[in-house]
Amino acid sequence: MEALRNKIVIAVFCAGDPNDREAKLAYEVGKHIARRDAILVCGGLGGCMEQAARGAKDEGGLTIGIIPIYEKQAANAYIDIVIPTGLGNARNTLVASTADAAIAVGGKTGTLSEIGFARKMGKPVVTLESWEFDGEWKITAGVLKADTPEEAVEIAIREASK
Amino acid sequence: MEALRNKIVIAVFCAGDPNDREAKLAYEVGKHIARRDAILVCGGLGGCMEQAARGAKDEGGLTIGIIPIYEKQAANAYIDIVIPTGLGNARNTLVASTADAAIAVGGKTGTLSEIGFARKMGKPVVTLESWEFDGEWKITAGVLKADTPEEAVEIAIREASK
Amino acid sequence: MEALRNKIVIAVFCAGDPNDREAKLAYEVGKHIARRDAILVCGGLGGCMEQAARGAKDEGGLTIGIIPIYEKQAANAYIDIVIPTGLGNARNTLVASTADAAIAVGGKTGTLSEIGFARKMGKPVVTLESWEFDGEWKITAGVLKADTPEEAVEIAIREASK
Amino acid sequence: MEALRNKIVIAVFCAGDPNDREAKLAYEVGKHIARRDAILVCGGLGGCMEQAARGAKDEGGLTIGIIPIYEKQAANAYIDIVIPTGLGNARNTLVASTADAAIAVGGKTGTLSEIGFARKMGKPVVTLESWEFDGEWKITAGVLKADTPEEAVEIAIREASK
Repeated sequence: MEALRNKIVIAVFCAGDPNDREAKLAYEVGKHIARRDAILVCGGLGGCMEQAARGAKDEGGLTIGIIPIYEKQAANAYIDIVIPTGLGNARNTLVASTADAAIAVGGKTGTLSEIGFARKMGKPVVTLESWEFDGEWKITAGVLKADTPEEAVEIAIREASK
Repeated sequence: MEALRNKIVIAVFCAGDPNDREAKLAYEVGKHIARRDAILVCGGLGGCMEQAARGAKDEGGLTIGIIPIYEKQAANAYIDIVIPTGLGNARNTLVASTADAAIAVGGKTGTLSEIGFARKMGKPVVTLESWEFDGEWKITAGVLKADTPEEAVEIAIREASK
Repeated sequence: MEALRNKIVIAVFCAGDPNDREAKLAYEVGKHIARRDAILVCGGLGGCMEQAARGAKDEGGLTIGIIPIYEKQAANAYIDIVIPTGLGNARNTLVASTADAAIAVGGKTGTLSEIGFARKMGKPVVTLESWEFDGEWKITAGVLKADTPEEAVEIAIREASK
Repeated sequence: MEALRNKIVIAVFCAGDPNDREAKLAYEVGKHIARRDAILVCGGLGGCMEQAARGAKDEGGLTIGIIPIYEKQAANAYIDIVIPTGLGNARNTLVASTADAAIAVGGKTGTLSEIGFARKMGKPVVTLESWEFDGEWKITAGVLKADTPEEAVEIAIREASK
């Protein structure tokens, strides 16, 4: 087994209150992350974050949840390693900084802030039915659009391996 | 004189390495914030942040700079109150949380993360030649576009007063 | 009037639920900070923090309150500049990093963490009926004991001016 | 195998520049944490943190390193899961909040701040040749003194299981 330390870590950015479509996409993204033997990191709470972690666990993956409050038990049931930060929204910066690449699935303003942070830190971001950015902005270079969960994970792994 | 505590606090989100156009806009935004007797808060470093603070000081305003490092002296010369956080990029969340409303001037990924955070916290955001968001996203409701620095400040003050 | 930027900033570390003695000491410390034309920074909430800020305002001083939650209105009535961080206990690090020197009045574990942080950052700390440290520890060099509020402020100003 | 999520997480607080005695104690503490099938969390850098993590790995344990900077590769070689926070000294609060109980080995001001935080959050703290606190302070109730690494881990596990 490859050492944990050498595994690629992929963040999933998504909403706490997704619609059915987003929840399904997040679950599939989580599955593919685990299949590719990468570690999943996310915000650790419910909604999309839970679906992504559930997907990863269904494939035997490892999951990290960085939650905004101090109560460890608030993390969803599919998180292996809980980091209870108590930092509120600032925990979003940690989800981004912990990852080697990130996948944004749908999402709202929290997801937007995470995309901004990940790009600020130079991390590759793959979007899946998520925010789109006007081509004239510099962010475009590091934000790549995927059409399916499998493709999103493939691009994320590829970019993280560069 | 009105008590400091009751004054409106307006954040200016912008880049550390602006082009001339953005720098000029930021300076004007700073001026108008002070003219309207509001307090300016920003990231406290150079570039656009310095221009905005300089604008505010040229009109006798009060400025707060929340910087990512511990060295107080790194704040630009136009900052009255320096909060040296040492928090790195996470300090962006504090610029957003300290403000009653925010104005994004041009800007790149750091600015994007700040817009995301401000909206996540329900703060009104006015954009001035900055990021534009696709109309179908929920963020639209709280992000208002202005055409001039004066109008940007007017909208920010109005929204912060609601 | 001296520019705000050049004024010394003194932190007051103390408990949210002080006894009468601690509350009175904190009030006096706040008064002396303002009399010496320094800016007071504290955790911004009630108890000792409120007494210190009240003391400073009674002498016409300026006060900064760095609070652990996002709700600005939770700051006590004597805070001029509120920094609502949402960072929970991690906000204690910001009270320490914002100051040029700190005075610990009584206090419990939160105060202890602040003393640790301030010393970690090399800031002088004056204790007033607060934690005492065993002489063999390195912290002793930077922690100075005062007998009265006036002396505490005098030492803090002197050390911050070095 | 017990699920990761259900394992006890023990923090080791100690200095980046320990003396030989502290380094040896930290290594032994790490070993005993792993032997008791608990997860070790620490500041992730060198010195005592490295020794503790090395001890845990020598016994096949799992280690989490929460580092103050963004560069993942700065974590010592014995860390499995790196959380690169970029938060500076504020990352100390996360080491405390991630643990169910903590063991302080020797240490200086950083360790002191971590003890303060852990107690502020109500986490049991065991000291091993570390800070001692005057009996009249409230902290005494939650700070327990151990004489050996094995005893320190035993007390920490027992207190965390309460």
